[in-house]
Amino acid sequence: MLTGEMFVGAARVSGSGKEVRSRDPRTGEELEPGYRYGGAAEVARAASLAEEAFDVYRATDSETRAAFLERIADEIGALAEPIVERAVLETGLPQARLTGEVGRTTGQLRLFAATLREGSWHGARIDPAQPDRTPLPRADIRQRRVPLGPVAVFGASNFPLAFSVAGGDTASALAAGCPVVVKAHDAHLGTSELVASAVRAAVVACGLPEGVFSLLVGDGPELGTRLVTDPRIQAAGFTGSRRAGLALASAAASRPQPIPVYAEMSSVNPVVLLPDALASRGADLGAAFVASLTLGAGQFCTNPGLVLAVEGPGLDEFLFAAAEAVRADQGGTMLTLGIAGAYASGQDRLAGRPGVTELARGEAGSAAACGGAALLTVDGSRFTAELQEEVFGATSLVVRCADQAELLGVVRALEGQLTATVHASEADEPLAAALLPVLERKAGRILFNGWPTGVEVGHAMVHGGPFPATSDSRTTSVGSLAIERFLRPVAYQDVPAALLPPVLRDGNPEGVWRRIDGELSRD
Amino acid sequence: MLTGEMFVGAARVSGSGKEVRSRDPRTGEELEPGYRYGGAAEVARAASLAEEAFDVYRATDSETRAAFLERIADEIGALAEPIVERAVLETGLPQARLTGEVGRTTGQLRLFAATLREGSWHGARIDPAQPDRTPLPRADIRQRRVPLGPVAVFGASNFPLAFSVAGGDTASALAAGCPVVVKAHDAHLGTSELVASAVRAAVVACGLPEGVFSLLVGDGPELGTRLVTDPRIQAAGFTGSRRAGLALASAAASRPQPIPVYAEMSSVNPVVLLPDALASRGADLGAAFVASLTLGAGQFCTNPGLVLAVEGPGLDEFLFAAAEAVRADQGGTMLTLGIAGAYASGQDRLAGRPGVTELARGEAGSAAACGGAALLTVDGSRFTAELQEEVFGATSLVVRCADQAELLGVVRALEGQLTATVHASEADEPLAAALLPVLERKAGRILFNGWPTGVEVGHAMVHGGPFPATSDSRTTSVGSLAIERFLRPVAYQDVPAALLPPVLRDGNPEGVWRRIDGELSRD
Repeated sequence: MLTGEMFVGAARVSGSGKEVRSRDPRTGEELEPGYRYGGAAEVARAASLAEEAFDVYRATDSETRAAFLERIADEIGALAEPIVERAVLETGLPQARLTGEVGRTTGQLRLFAATLREGSWHGARIDPAQPDRTPLPRADIRQRRVPLGPVAVFGASNFPLAFSVAGGDTASALAAGCPVVVKAHDAHLGTSELVASAVRAAVVACGLPEGVFSLLVGDGPELGTRLVTDPRIQAAGFTGSRRAGLALASAAASRPQPIPVYAEMSSVNPVVLLPDALASRGADLGAAFVASLTLGAGQFCTNPGLVLAVEGPGLDEFLFAAAEAVRADQGGTMLTLGIAGAYASGQDRLAGRPGVTELARGEAGSAAACGGAALLTVDGSRFTAELQEEVFGATSLVVRCADQAELLGVVRALEGQLTATVHASEADEPLAAALLPVLERKAGRILFNGWPTGVEVGHAMVHGGPFPATSDSRTTSVGSLAIERFLRPVAYQDVPAALLPPVLRDGNPEGVWRRIDGELSRD
Repeated sequence: MLTGEMFVGAARVSGSGKEVRSRDPRTGEELEPGYRYGGAAEVARAASLAEEAFDVYRATDSETRAAFLERIADEIGALAEPIVERAVLETGLPQARLTGEVGRTTGQLRLFAATLREGSWHGARIDPAQPDRTPLPRADIRQRRVPLGPVAVFGASNFPLAFSVAGGDTASALAAGCPVVVKAHDAHLGTSELVASAVRAAVVACGLPEGVFSLLVGDGPELGTRLVTDPRIQAAGFTGSRRAGLALASAAASRPQPIPVYAEMSSVNPVVLLPDALASRGADLGAAFVASLTLGAGQFCTNPGLVLAVEGPGLDEFLFAAAEAVRADQGGTMLTLGIAGAYASGQDRLAGRPGVTELARGEAGSAAACGGAALLTVDGSRFTAELQEEVFGATSLVVRCADQAELLGVVRALEGQLTATVHASEADEPLAAALLPVLERKAGRILFNGWPTGVEVGHAMVHGGPFPATSDSRTTSVGSLAIERFLRPVAYQDVPAALLPPVLRDGNPEGVWRRIDGELSRD
């Protein structure tokens, strides 16, 4: 079923570069087939096809694009079994998790289909003409949003489906009317090929131009830079490491025409345990925390890598229970041998920082790419900037603060985060109220009495946050708002009725919400 | 009335750097008082006060901020006479134009007050909890937008009021809840001081923290770079030259924490004359075109610097009438001696390009900073990228195309623009329909049968466009949408009711439009 080829528009092609294979992280074994890296020629061809497709694709109406997204979801659903089977081999993630991720991926595509049909994505605004206004008449001015152009998407290692070939970035860019060129992640090449074949089938079934979608395989830094600096590419979506995200953002900013890069990069997702919550359920919190920490071997963007609390018996109970749970943990399979290696050295680096004490370490497990949990602590007075470096995996640092002032000081010193979690009882609410405005400046999502792992795909979700959580805090990479990343407004002044886009015509033929002279209306 | 001082929060302070004076561009005479440049100390102090003010200011409700903006408008209105008087001296712009600009500036402030009260700016979204959902319950997730933080605003030379101290960037940033630090433009220091005193009076009257507003005077590149690289500044708004805009954007992108820069930079605002429109009213179009070209000595961002048409008798009539009008033009006072010098050399450079012919030149006028209109032509076959360099002033280049294909080719080769104008009769509509999608990719505003000068301040306006018209095509610097530039979304998951921001509480106490499970509602 797998050919080891890329999809450059309609063509299945093989690169002329290095041949690579994904590996089973459980065994370290290479998986067939091999995939040869593409380079300049494939980037140029895919970008050129995307550019050719753009004008046709962006002129399609909401219904056509919604049906296309649903068709992709259907095609992925039809291939769910081989996709999950291959993804298990390539990622070591459990079958149930990957089956769930297929559902999340197709659900995401359907969410954007619904968002298209609802129509507010157009951002339609009409300021009607005022021919009798003095001293000057007002022209008729109408506004809608149009897509930016071809978008480069980078598959993420830790969500081989939901943040990869047909994941959130691809779904939102396609919804916006932007052709997509995906760079496959080397860790799951077969999964990528299967999903790409599903997207490709939907392109054909919907009669869309071939350039609407391409899948490239290539060296990360080299092909990535080529993609974001190709003059036809107009935006990029990325989830991965801070180093890689910053490199892409910097390449994009250095173009003769800079383009937006939406890079979701790094976050330690602080969890703040307030005194009464700790006192009343410290042990329960400790156990639940470790369940979140070790979920998926700690390989979530929202993994709780930092815990903040004030010293006391409640914190002792929390730490006791958490340490016990960490010690009992059997470890997990990490996504790649490289990630496992980086995790081990990151864990050691953090454990070796001045003032940091190791409280507990779990089993590493028997996988080739294994990684064990670790629980570290440090006194609040010794908390430094370097202690908030993300260690991708199930390692967390508990900051033991002398008092609330010290705790607030540590929170204020944090970098931007995807999430910030507060555990609070009712009695903690005054303190929580003081904390909330500080957290609002630090994180894209603030959650109470839960755990940050698990990102709901909906309309209100924000999976984003201030730098360095992302390269652009003004948006989200999960949820329906993500479509706005790939749109820009255009105003039409006194454009003849027949030439206006349907969504801006008198009588509201598309029946969408529009802002008329500043007031929302469906008339 | 003028003291020659800056406003660093509540303090009127004098810098310790070079002393500068604005000049009357009509005579070249220096105007009292002198203003001494501020530097690192003033930037640090203003940024620090802005940061201190931020948490208090952003916590104010829509009504408080709306009343503040209206108070600024009132204070400016009360000072209108001295402001206009001084602005005439500093800019050479006619009194009537400046009186109108006062109205535009206060109208802009009031528009954002109305936008705040309407409430959609919050971007409120609620996905209610689904405790019974299987396999996993859904948490309660709510979203609103919060301000980015202190904003740096750069006063523009060509709109000493509407794009300066209390102009569109300041109004939209203050509306969003962001304190503002303005860098005054050297060309209108006295006007800046007067307007700043009005803003300062409003800050006091409304009982807001002093750091909500500061006005700095300083060396453009030096103080500008200091401002956008100060770690407390979180975004910047700029209108001016491409060189200065790119320098600010580059400095902002190189920060340890990059920030958004909204720079409105350069545009030649192409005007496309379609065959039937030319044939039926070529001479009228020629005269009307020159009226737009020479308005305000051609010193509008949206000045029509490029005209495209197919050869024929209609174009000949257009050119004949336009040339006549240019020759009859008496020239105008330019904003500064520097701008007049740059205009003269830009005009010569463009006129000297291969293939460019000078068709007509107007009088330069008698002002010290004078500038005369010029009409140049070139054959479409000889159109090159360097011919779309903006010459800030009343010079325009008419591209005579052999046929429609050549015309479309020239349009396709254009850089990003603020505006694109089409003159079309009904008979031209098929061609206009083919042109429209091309223009949508080039410009932020497309207008028919009018002239691009004159930017209506409303809800549907887009004053923006693809690079290099602006550094960020995803927004506008004029109109109510501009508030979104200074906001970012935050999600609240299972946050206790008492801690939720009012706009996200059950029962919709603020009575604003919110998206509930994806559907807009006021319930």
